[in-house]
Amino acid sequence: MNKDVGYNFLKSAITLSNPYMSLDDFMKWLEEKKASTHHNIQEIPFAELENWEFERETGNLVHSSGKFFSIEGIQIKTNWGNVKEWTQPIINQPEIGFLGIITKKIDGVLYFLMQAKIEPGNINTVQISPTLQATKSNYTQVHKGNPPLYLEYFIEKREDVNILLDQLQSEQGARFLRKRNRNIIIEVTSDIQVNEDFCWLTLGQIKELLKLDNVINMDTRTVISGISYGDLSTLKQFALTNSSTVEYDFLISELDTKNAMNTVEDIISWITRLKAFAELEVDKIPLKDLNEWTKDEFSIHHLQQKYFSVIGVRAEIGNREVASWTQPLVKSAQEGIIAFIIKKINGVYHFLVQAKMESGNFDIIELAPSVQCLTGNYRKGLNEYEVEFIDYVLEPEKNKAKVLYSSFQSEEGGRFFEEQNKNMIIEVGDDFSVDLPEKYNWMTLNQIKTFIKFNNYLNIQSRSLLSVVRFIN
Amino acid sequence: MNKDVGYNFLKSAITLSNPYMSLDDFMKWLEEKKASTHHNIQEIPFAELENWEFERETGNLVHSSGKFFSIEGIQIKTNWGNVKEWTQPIINQPEIGFLGIITKKIDGVLYFLMQAKIEPGNINTVQISPTLQATKSNYTQVHKGNPPLYLEYFIEKREDVNILLDQLQSEQGARFLRKRNRNIIIEVTSDIQVNEDFCWLTLGQIKELLKLDNVINMDTRTVISGISYGDLSTLKQFALTNSSTVEYDFLISELDTKNAMNTVEDIISWITRLKAFAELEVDKIPLKDLNEWTKDEFSIHHLQQKYFSVIGVRAEIGNREVASWTQPLVKSAQEGIIAFIIKKINGVYHFLVQAKMESGNFDIIELAPSVQCLTGNYRKGLNEYEVEFIDYVLEPEKNKAKVLYSSFQSEEGGRFFEEQNKNMIIEVGDDFSVDLPEKYNWMTLNQIKTFIKFNNYLNIQSRSLLSVVRFIN
Repeated sequence: MNKDVGYNFLKSAITLSNPYMSLDDFMKWLEEKKASTHHNIQEIPFAELENWEFERETGNLVHSSGKFFSIEGIQIKTNWGNVKEWTQPIINQPEIGFLGIITKKIDGVLYFLMQAKIEPGNINTVQISPTLQATKSNYTQVHKGNPPLYLEYFIEKREDVNILLDQLQSEQGARFLRKRNRNIIIEVTSDIQVNEDFCWLTLGQIKELLKLDNVINMDTRTVISGISYGDLSTLKQFALTNSSTVEYDFLISELDTKNAMNTVEDIISWITRLKAFAELEVDKIPLKDLNEWTKDEFSIHHLQQKYFSVIGVRAEIGNREVASWTQPLVKSAQEGIIAFIIKKINGVYHFLVQAKMESGNFDIIELAPSVQCLTGNYRKGLNEYEVEFIDYVLEPEKNKAKVLYSSFQSEEGGRFFEEQNKNMIIEVGDDFSVDLPEKYNWMTLNQIKTFIKFNNYLNIQSRSLLSVVRFIN
Repeated sequence: MNKDVGYNFLKSAITLSNPYMSLDDFMKWLEEKKASTHHNIQEIPFAELENWEFERETGNLVHSSGKFFSIEGIQIKTNWGNVKEWTQPIINQPEIGFLGIITKKIDGVLYFLMQAKIEPGNINTVQISPTLQATKSNYTQVHKGNPPLYLEYFIEKREDVNILLDQLQSEQGARFLRKRNRNIIIEVTSDIQVNEDFCWLTLGQIKELLKLDNVINMDTRTVISGISYGDLSTLKQFALTNSSTVEYDFLISELDTKNAMNTVEDIISWITRLKAFAELEVDKIPLKDLNEWTKDEFSIHHLQQKYFSVIGVRAEIGNREVASWTQPLVKSAQEGIIAFIIKKINGVYHFLVQAKMESGNFDIIELAPSVQCLTGNYRKGLNEYEVEFIDYVLEPEKNKAKVLYSSFQSEEGGRFFEEQNKNMIIEVGDDFSVDLPEKYNWMTLNQIKTFIKFNNYLNIQSRSLLSVVRFIN
């Protein structure tokens, strides 16, 4: 990777004009894709799932090939939070998948090759995904059959490919057991064919589309969240004229390395201390042995209908060719909310991060948004725990807070049934104390991007929310 | 942490004169400690272990309190290396322990409060350990009884304590199941009592003592290996007059951030790729179900006496008061060798690191020294695998390589019975290709120190070896 990577990413991030696909054209193109798409998803009883079965001994829901994923049970013991012990279903998919974006420099600007992708659980049928989403079976090509489009650019060492970003990132810790994906962005220097359902977008356009609900899928959001622009020396090469003050302030938080309230070493020390005292014991147990969870003809669900359920669906999907299959999906009990509270400290935006333990976490805790309550547990009085800072999210004005960003964004439609969460960024003022409870801390965007590079520091909810940063007016 | 931390560490590292304890006085003090110490370790049959027993159902060797550690079995399946499947005993001690050093600035120089510590498995009886070595039971004080000396400085938030380094670091992946310790260095600003068996040393003195065999224990080596001195701006504050060329070159590799052959992002990409393709499945199995391992009255060992064995010992240890107890220890079948090959690239020393999979690794692979064969598997022809680069270690002169460092250093004497490994740093010349096999890469010391800060990147063998860097003449 050369030193221009940050410069090229930033240039793409501030470019909205695109001769290949203006935003207006894109919206038409997307509507055409949706209109020409057959997308019929029916909830079916488990008995009608084909090639999926409940293992006799464990009750685990597995594919007969042993591939794809399985729904298993886990038992959790922890000293973190109010609930010290519970059991739950979890998705087990132990392979590292591939989320890859091809970019290409055209007339000095980096364009991202994005895919209009249909997934069974998608809200809006079609969402914009990375160039490549591949499972390990796909990319190691253990099974023959058609490899995914563009796979060859990611697998082989090629003269015409430069790697711009290549990180291992986590999935939802409350739903997946230690699942991780390889997030990768490459630059292709040779001519490349743009297949149907693919188009070139600048990073700026993608961020603009993140103002809309449920257009850019989770996989795209996690990949672009890892992009960093370097430091303030990058900025000197740009004459930024069209940025709003807020945009410029975000950029400073992204590039500044001097004015953070805590050093990177302070934050590592804070995480080390929390991990040393935290206990998280996760044992696999048979799905049929879960407490407080039950199974009927149509779903595996919590006795009080809380959290989420596992359902079966028949999917008929396609445009010219329609594929049909059945599979389990996870269905959330309620919409959730994820929000970053931000505050200017030493003149630089700091993000309020939360050290959060989730049962499927690879390394005990990850850094989550200031507020994250995926399943509607934030309603006060009804829940088993208080959600810190929730008032700033539910009633920002009353708390002198300013909403800088708000939209609904989807979870991955290949595993989750029409699940969306409210994504918010909220600025608080001088009256919001810089002193925080033990599990919370302040970080600049630049620091967050440093931690993202290394494995398993920022959880997927925080990365998803970070992906929207910059084009906020 | 303030910006002077690197400066203060470097100043201590280049300071050899110490009014409280010269190196000559230290050697006398250490000999006195050894002479006044009762250290009687006897191998005993398992039947004579008190409070340790083989669990009926599993055959696991456990303490009757359920505390301390246990010897269990694991089954490994992997696609890494030549051996794809095996079983082995492993030490299971799931808590995060504490390895802590107190420092204090006296007349502008940072002194380290080191402990002359007796451990049952120690070669030389007494070795120099951090101020504090504590288990979780110690530091959470679940059990009453005497807390370890100086614990209070590490546990409470205190006005007179600054944290200088605070990292989570791994233990031996081939021997421990995902074991990690909190490595921490603090600075105390108030007056502090120096108890018997403790003394003040500069970092430079500790490094000087690392020229000797088996004086500085493993726990000290891992803690000081995480120290970084900052960047070249630190150096400008020093007029280094007494350094040899080699020392100065090491310092440049430590401080330079511009001339590395690979960027940090390149290295992350290399690790990400390896982790994505690597498979490591580790399942706990009953110790009595291991293949190729057997148990007799005195030991659990491999059928061909390879690798290591687990033995029982009776320890009588102390100076004025003698404590006596029994416990299991791990005994290596042979001495091992760990070596870093280094080479000047772009005028800066680069270290040849190896991505190594070990069964107990927390995250699949960690970065190991260029050569690491703990159990004598390097004898060509006799072993199940070839050891890359072994010729440079066994016959450096024949290969135009220069030995810059060579000594024997011990594994932790609380778990390992008189285990020592040869530690070497070997410089190769122009004829050594910069192109490396897939699992190897070049890193500057500055880059290595960056990765050490984050969890589980550098394994304990590489950290041990890095701790010796600087005072090499």
